[in-house]
Amino acid sequence: MSLVVVGSVAYDGLETPHGKVDRILGGSCTYIALAASFFTKVKIVAVVGDDFAQEDIEFLKSRQIDLEGLERVPGKTFFWAGVYSADMNDRTTLTTDLNVFADFKPKLPASYRSAPYLLLGNIQPELQRDVRQQMNGVRFSGGDTMNYWIADYRDDLLATIKQWDFLLINDSEARMLAGEHNLRRAAEKILAMGPQTLVIKRGEYGAVLFQGKDHFMVPGFLLEDVFDPTGAGDCFAGGFMGYLAERGIDPHKGGIEHAELRRAVIYGSVLGSFCCEKFGPDRFRDLSRREIDARYREFKTFTDF
Amino acid sequence: MSLVVVGSVAYDGLETPHGKVDRILGGSCTYIALAASFFTKVKIVAVVGDDFAQEDIEFLKSRQIDLEGLERVPGKTFFWAGVYSADMNDRTTLTTDLNVFADFKPKLPASYRSAPYLLLGNIQPELQRDVRQQMNGVRFSGGDTMNYWIADYRDDLLATIKQWDFLLINDSEARMLAGEHNLRRAAEKILAMGPQTLVIKRGEYGAVLFQGKDHFMVPGFLLEDVFDPTGAGDCFAGGFMGYLAERGIDPHKGGIEHAELRRAVIYGSVLGSFCCEKFGPDRFRDLSRREIDARYREFKTFTDF
Repeated sequence: MSLVVVGSVAYDGLETPHGKVDRILGGSCTYIALAASFFTKVKIVAVVGDDFAQEDIEFLKSRQIDLEGLERVPGKTFFWAGVYSADMNDRTTLTTDLNVFADFKPKLPASYRSAPYLLLGNIQPELQRDVRQQMNGVRFSGGDTMNYWIADYRDDLLATIKQWDFLLINDSEARMLAGEHNLRRAAEKILAMGPQTLVIKRGEYGAVLFQGKDHFMVPGFLLEDVFDPTGAGDCFAGGFMGYLAERGIDPHKGGIEHAELRRAVIYGSVLGSFCCEKFGPDRFRDLSRREIDARYREFKTFTDF
Repeated sequence: MSLVVVGSVAYDGLETPHGKVDRILGGSCTYIALAASFFTKVKIVAVVGDDFAQEDIEFLKSRQIDLEGLERVPGKTFFWAGVYSADMNDRTTLTTDLNVFADFKPKLPASYRSAPYLLLGNIQPELQRDVRQQMNGVRFSGGDTMNYWIADYRDDLLATIKQWDFLLINDSEARMLAGEHNLRRAAEKILAMGPQTLVIKRGEYGAVLFQGKDHFMVPGFLLEDVFDPTGAGDCFAGGFMGYLAERGIDPHKGGIEHAELRRAVIYGSVLGSFCCEKFGPDRFRDLSRREIDARYREFKTFTDF
């Protein structure tokens, strides 16, 4: 079943201990959409400038991503550049040129509005709320956010996530949002803010799913080479939501069983791990569903006891 | 089957965000022995001063720990004091008074020498090697080490772990020992140094077991209150080795199956998690095997998919 993804489509300049690229396709919407495209039909809403390359359009199209909602306006595409520390656990932003993204007002094409699944990448909470209102009877919706919105747009953010079925967030942001260091207690507080499902991403250490009194933990995949971690969290979100959309589950008709959510967390982890194997989103040029399912089984093998 | 544990028995001064104690029983041997005592007969080798309290002797005895190898000499018991950061991920050492531990030369009582299992807490590598040589036909032996020995006693340490069946070490120390940041490649290098089994402890993020080409990952237990993390790594070691000793497996007669090692890693995680629930080793005053087994099953519940 189709999934609407809203967020940034950008160019990134990346430097990791493995090398440097001056300009490569990036942005939360890009990573989410590419990861989810291995499971379901994805329709994106984003904005790019007139410098956006045809080859990048072709790449997205090659993954059967619907680009009707990809607005092209005069000016330059959002550009971000950063450099990773030697252990790749920290990164320093060198450049953030919002460019055409500064005035992004997501407009959903009519053909998107009745899609049952909605995943909102990290953008201004008010815009996230506005997008959800443009949808008709969305079944399962949620998204990501970041420290900036938590700190400076808290009320806006709370109004937004109150309507969401799920929130996907990293551990430091979960702690910040809850005002509580202990992850288990932070999760309880966040679940009281609205979303019935919470996934806390912990980078190389995996993820934790919380729903009601239940939780599920998965360790991170031990890659032999982390080439570039850019986009891994967004790919987690894309794999998670892509799997749920593929399964076509309606939480309002009997709920998504916790077992399906657990599988979705594993698929999220699988896509996040593949993302790190090449620069930017390059791993998705030749990744296959067969490899994805094989890694899913690897997760079973190295966690089973 | 009985397990010999060698290491420090000490007093600690501890300050965590939950409170402060000026003097409480501590030391690697203490934590390992207490944790392992829920599974098997434990015989300790350590040294204390004439200030060592009778009530602490009674506590160890109440866990059926054999104290024949606990030497008492004139002087003061090893004292360490430290303060934890607000998130308890860092600690600052305030005092390290080695006292009688400075001249510790472990001597195994005759009744210890034919024990089949040996766990060496973090002490000078040469002493660890010497202890192993005092044993007759030990079946399964190994231990822990720390950054100090890795940096300044490397050759000594390599000669020691070459003889071990397993090495238990934390992640930053594994990286340091291997000279390699990537955990998977670091593990390969360490396995080439001698031990057939490697367990890398990752604090709140759990642990990874490596054996041959196989690995097993377990996330850390999500405690609602981490009261005091002191000794958790040693309790992990005690639970791990205690379980293997209880099962009485002989790796030289057909090997410890990987499945048993995985279960041992879970029991290690369980004991490490209980350790954090009270100050120092206080949680072990009333812990029961029933609670341990219940938490083992909880690990199943929150990791299964």
